Amino acid sequence: MHSDRPLSELYINGEQHFLPSVSVDNVIFGFHDNELKVLLLQLDAIGAWGLPGGHVFKEEAIEDAAVRILRSRTSLKHLFLQQFFVFGSADRTRQDVLRKVFSNWDGSLSADSWLMQRFISIGYYALVEYEKVAPQPDEFSSQCAWHNVGDLPALIFDHRAIIEKALQALRMQINYQPIGYNLLPKAFTLKNLQVIYETILGRKLDRGNFNKKVLGYGILDKKEKLFSGGRHKAPYLYSFNKEQYFQALRNGLVKDF
Amino acid sequence: MHSDRPLSELYINGEQHFLPSVSVDNVIFGFHDNELKVLLLQLDAIGAWGLPGGHVFKEEAIEDAAVRILRSRTSLKHLFLQQFFVFGSADRTRQDVLRKVFSNWDGSLSADSWLMQRFISIGYYALVEYEKVAPQPDEFSSQCAWHNVGDLPALIFDHRAIIEKALQALRMQINYQPIGYNLLPKAFTLKNLQVIYETILGRKLDRGNFNKKVLGYGILDKKEKLFSGGRHKAPYLYSFNKEQYFQALRNGLVKDF
Repeated sequence: MHSDRPLSELYINGEQHFLPSVSVDNVIFGFHDNELKVLLLQLDAIGAWGLPGGHVFKEEAIEDAAVRILRSRTSLKHLFLQQFFVFGSADRTRQDVLRKVFSNWDGSLSADSWLMQRFISIGYYALVEYEKVAPQPDEFSSQCAWHNVGDLPALIFDHRAIIEKALQALRMQINYQPIGYNLLPKAFTLKNLQVIYETILGRKLDRGNFNKKVLGYGILDKKEKLFSGGRHKAPYLYSFNKEQYFQALRNGLVKDF
Repeated sequence: MHSDRPLSELYINGEQHFLPSVSVDNVIFGFHDNELKVLLLQLDAIGAWGLPGGHVFKEEAIEDAAVRILRSRTSLKHLFLQQFFVFGSADRTRQDVLRKVFSNWDGSLSADSWLMQRFISIGYYALVEYEKVAPQPDEFSSQCAWHNVGDLPALIFDHRAIIEKALQALRMQINYQPIGYNLLPKAFTLKNLQVIYETILGRKLDRGNFNKKVLGYGILDKKEKLFSGGRHKAPYLYSFNKEQYFQALRNGLVKDF
């Protein structure tokens, strides 16, 4: 692979290196301060933010491209990554905006450059442990930062729709995918887990019912109490009982919240 | 669009008309004789069968391409079509096989022809009413025919994996998508519906439990008895109560079989 060479060098004659028409966009979810967050890059040339994305080398599987892009922005080794949708309307990108984004190379990119053409984008979502991520900007951005999914900044092209579709996919898959497992640290409170379910399902859940049901599945092990200074009302910490949890997911059992 | 011109004419200089690297494959499911079936084309030049597929015009949304391809094989106007996965390993197609498939144009297709390059394929599944389909072969095939999903013929490239992935997607989505509604004619027996669930879930279901649950959801209207000549044991026919059924799907209610 070409990963030892700077991307900008490969990009200028990109038609030699990359699969034409195909890009990858990663929606990287993390959970912090009881908020579901998504990792975005601010594109210096236009100010708007965008999803960490990239292109596919000619000899590279699309999944490998998604992993490579995700690693380059998060530095994470072990990843939960899932393809969820392809975005392929004919007018989803705009040449004038692309020209600004790549303005460092303005002299090198002609209107018929591979980068100026129509791209379909394959969307992947990743569920990562927020605390383990060291966000890395890329060559076109000075900032790589987390944003609350409920409070997104101005986004380039169809990236807001891509994030919304990723949330929809999570909603469909919440009973079959280890979503909480990948987003939460080893120990967490029931409230943390409830907020993840509430954010993904898009509605408030009754705390008592939620606790009763989730504990009833036998997928959580109770740990020590969260230290809070006071003696009372400190919430218990829990961790997933990995075996029980994955068994429950295989059966589609964690549901009905 | 170019749909009034024969495809073969467009294909020879296809790089002028089609998005490079991107193809579409449709997994078209129908239900007949209590079997879930998939519509396949036999590729004359190699004997193996393949999914109805095609390419995307440069100015065409990928969904529109999928609909166009589906219509050209089924002649159906109203379609339930759903994108489910992109197949993008670097070695999923083989030049020597492609050369045979397109052997009518052997003189015209060089090794660097757009058709000989790597393609990712966007998989769509369609659920159609078997009785309404008049299968249409394409330019590379003399036969377009239904095959039982449990008894597939030799298939080209990764098309068997594509069908299996489509079935997996159905399995994940059976509680949220109008699968039975699109596969069954207006009137059907409970046994018909049970077989669809069994085929998609990949396991036998208890008849009594199934009937009790599915009737309990209030999504079915009872019709007259199926005429069978005898007086007893003729099964009742049912139809979906459209409003109740779609309401139930929105709530993810049709589950737990």
